[in-house]
Amino acid sequence: MHAGDVAIQMSAVGEDTPAREAARVLAAQDLPGLIVLDRRGRPLTVLAGTQVLRMALPSYCQDDPALARVIDEAAADVIFEGIGDRTVADLLPRNRPELPAVSADATLLEVAAVMARSNVPLVAVVDKNRVMTGAITLDGLLDRMLGT
Amino acid sequence: MHAGDVAIQMSAVGEDTPAREAARVLAAQDLPGLIVLDRRGRPLTVLAGTQVLRMALPSYCQDDPALARVIDEAAADVIFEGIGDRTVADLLPRNRPELPAVSADATLLEVAAVMARSNVPLVAVVDKNRVMTGAITLDGLLDRMLGT
Repeated sequence: MHAGDVAIQMSAVGEDTPAREAARVLAAQDLPGLIVLDRRGRPLTVLAGTQVLRMALPSYCQDDPALARVIDEAAADVIFEGIGDRTVADLLPRNRPELPAVSADATLLEVAAVMARSNVPLVAVVDKNRVMTGAITLDGLLDRMLGT
Repeated sequence: MHAGDVAIQMSAVGEDTPAREAARVLAAQDLPGLIVLDRRGRPLTVLAGTQVLRMALPSYCQDDPALARVIDEAAADVIFEGIGDRTVADLLPRNRPELPAVSADATLLEVAAVMARSNVPLVAVVDKNRVMTGAITLDGLLDRMLGT
């Protein structure tokens, strides 16, 4: 079995995607992060879900979670107020984590080795032009490797 | 809506749980990590999925993913050989990440604020004795907050 057999299709975003839209994409798919692609569809980096949350929540909430308890507003309003008009590029940290990538013919053990080196439970599957054709999650990988 | 309304039941492990069993628990549930409980059921820390993978894979695979490609063995055999007879306690890093915990009556915004401070997309829900009664994932939280 190879990477191409385990890869799933997942929504990705670009650097120009509004951050509000990115938060919705993240929420809509049950995945550990958002893959950011360049204009040619090649993976640039990955935005972890907690990072999106960190960028979206106003700092007064993060500094004092007890304060968040007493805010009399719908949570979504506060999230979207925090995001404002920023784009994905604005959410990316200065030190962008590299999104590991493998080819479709990589073995599962190779995918596991590549994923183990990163802190993100996602690996992109790319073609020979480095254009993303799918992604493999840690969960999908373990399911196949351990037969669960 | 409060934390108790969003919390899900999830399998947790103890420090004495064999690491092989922990890898199976992680694979069996579609969750970003494994919560480690003490003997009274209070959350101690969380093991990220990539951490389990890092501990499970033999170092010769991680040092050179290209080598992993040519190993002529079933991936599960290599994983379980790497884990050996270790327990969850053996897999835990020295600097254990703190698993954020909230009470069942925390607001969703409060849960978001607590989660944003950590790098783990999981928050434990605990009772007044700090015994875990459930957990909230980032995905579950965003689904409720953004209505996706």
